[in-house]
Amino acid sequence: MQDPAQAGDQAYMARALQLARRGLFSTHPNPRVGCVIVAAGGEIVGEGWHQRAGEPHAEVHALRQAGERARGATAYVTLEPCSHHGRTPPCAEALLKAGVGRVVAAMQDPNPLVAGRGLGLLRAAGIEVSSGVLEQEARELNVGFIRRMELGLPYVRVKLAMSLDGRTAMASGESQWITGAPARAAVQRLRARSSVVLSGADTVLCDNARLTVRADELEVDAEQAALAAARPPLRVLVDGQLRVPLSAAFFQAGPAWVACCDEDGRGEEYRAAGHELLRLPRGDGHVDLRHLLAELAAAGANEVLVEAGPRLAGAFAREGLVDEYRIFMAPQLLGSAARPLLDWPLERMSEAPQLTIRDIRAVGRDWQIIAVPA
Amino acid sequence: MQDPAQAGDQAYMARALQLARRGLFSTHPNPRVGCVIVAAGGEIVGEGWHQRAGEPHAEVHALRQAGERARGATAYVTLEPCSHHGRTPPCAEALLKAGVGRVVAAMQDPNPLVAGRGLGLLRAAGIEVSSGVLEQEARELNVGFIRRMELGLPYVRVKLAMSLDGRTAMASGESQWITGAPARAAVQRLRARSSVVLSGADTVLCDNARLTVRADELEVDAEQAALAAARPPLRVLVDGQLRVPLSAAFFQAGPAWVACCDEDGRGEEYRAAGHELLRLPRGDGHVDLRHLLAELAAAGANEVLVEAGPRLAGAFAREGLVDEYRIFMAPQLLGSAARPLLDWPLERMSEAPQLTIRDIRAVGRDWQIIAVPA
Repeated sequence: MQDPAQAGDQAYMARALQLARRGLFSTHPNPRVGCVIVAAGGEIVGEGWHQRAGEPHAEVHALRQAGERARGATAYVTLEPCSHHGRTPPCAEALLKAGVGRVVAAMQDPNPLVAGRGLGLLRAAGIEVSSGVLEQEARELNVGFIRRMELGLPYVRVKLAMSLDGRTAMASGESQWITGAPARAAVQRLRARSSVVLSGADTVLCDNARLTVRADELEVDAEQAALAAARPPLRVLVDGQLRVPLSAAFFQAGPAWVACCDEDGRGEEYRAAGHELLRLPRGDGHVDLRHLLAELAAAGANEVLVEAGPRLAGAFAREGLVDEYRIFMAPQLLGSAARPLLDWPLERMSEAPQLTIRDIRAVGRDWQIIAVPA
Repeated sequence: MQDPAQAGDQAYMARALQLARRGLFSTHPNPRVGCVIVAAGGEIVGEGWHQRAGEPHAEVHALRQAGERARGATAYVTLEPCSHHGRTPPCAEALLKAGVGRVVAAMQDPNPLVAGRGLGLLRAAGIEVSSGVLEQEARELNVGFIRRMELGLPYVRVKLAMSLDGRTAMASGESQWITGAPARAAVQRLRARSSVVLSGADTVLCDNARLTVRADELEVDAEQAALAAARPPLRVLVDGQLRVPLSAAFFQAGPAWVACCDEDGRGEEYRAAGHELLRLPRGDGHVDLRHLLAELAAAGANEVLVEAGPRLAGAFAREGLVDEYRIFMAPQLLGSAARPLLDWPLERMSEAPQLTIRDIRAVGRDWQIIAVPA
């Protein structure tokens, strides 16, 4: 039997997580956070979620709604309340001032500026504090933020669309519309939640890809679509030799970052067109992808979505830089002459990378597979 | 709202189907059939299922158990009762003699010797007769028997074990243990339910495959294991040029059929060793697979399991002879140099065969995908 008090804590935290998820497309570079204030009788008297960096945190919204009823109440927050003065005053202080009697957090803040200090501050003030309720769910919601705080790298998701026989395109390159509209909408939502959408010269040149978020294709409600439209992900092109011309649809769609090996004296041209050029040579004619990820994390990138062909996606895989594969599998066979999922030649079974499949689910007539390194 | 009488019919038929499934491994070449006798008050007074060809049909077992209580009762049968004298007397007559008042069948018998005559005979005798209760489920249980009766061909299932990136083995051929023990047990059960397990010379030579059913690896109860052991599937080798020596483990494991293009005067050698040789040349150095399937159906094969490498499995696929793919997908990447799922080079997306994915489910750490031509 589960302790009823514990079950209650989980139910309120589940609601706080539900609220936090509303910030999926918009809190970047901040984490997604939700807060629920529950009065002594069990009534929810305040709810809030963080919408955008620079705007009030979840706790502030919830406390405002609760007003005087916050006194003696329990505050459920999906992330430890902050203790530092950022662009907004610390939430731990706001909770103290409001007179809440108890604070339940899903997890400690991995931000080294907080890291237990928020909860410590509350505890020192005599407030009953606990942490770890639905922690796994809370960590998943901010997997990129946590990774950036803990390792200085973003969470790298590689999106691939393949046939049942593991092929991404015909040998000729023909590949449009392997997957159906619901899968494409799912990819749009993956882009919208990411801080960065990253691609390579092959994809941008061959598919004339823009890699933008199209709010009307997200298949979410109007509020979510508006939040996504207001905070588009940064588009990053890996183009070692600067093969993609500034006239390409990718560059015409708005400012982007380009990672190259050498500027070849053309840097000014790109910068004048509003783009950022990063020179990150690895010495072998390729861009140093790990360095690029570190630069992106330093710029606040939590989640990076790699949408590239077998060469670039294969390079991320070979270098051990992939945290998650999102594979959209179409119910068709492209045959043995078609292009591989990843350019990654292996000789022996002992070299074969082992994965864990986290989730498989139908997306229209296609299937989405979530796999992570085992 | 569902009609309560109809819901009752479905519940009893579901029980009859459950009984029928106990014959999954043993009724070949007969269909799997279950029967439930329900007295007027709703009590089940008799249950039976067909175990083996030549032994009593499901109805006979159920009527024996019911005895006098069959009078005025309703008989639920998963297949129309037979009307012809085969190795056992017709079941329609047995039901009449027992005095049942009503007969509910899941489906008509596709056997041209029955095809409605069983139900017609009962109706003519004044018994209330209906058909079509849980018909879809009943058809699935005997998909091979129905196909053979209707088209003179067996139901062809192609089993494949692949990595997440659609590869079956390294370029060197190294491939053992791609999938885990639960997936291998599932393959054993697929073999056990099949009338025929079919493979090619490459697989038998390279993997030293025997393609036998090993009762202790089925992971079923003792009764099912004993039934499976007593009725092993016929093993068929496609070996156009008779490359596999009689000393191979495949031949040592028991009598088999070999389909070749030319006997080369060696037929007697195979026959003397207890094997059957079929000469089925197609004129291009390959065995005529469609002809082979027709021969197998003529010999009573309901379900054929193809366990072969990319070449032979690809040939079945290219010739449109595959009714179902059973793909066991292991959570690993074998890389872009590894062997394809099927040898089937295609040039244009418009040629890509479309499939429908019927089912995806976890089997240990692997996943089983059931796909059928769309």
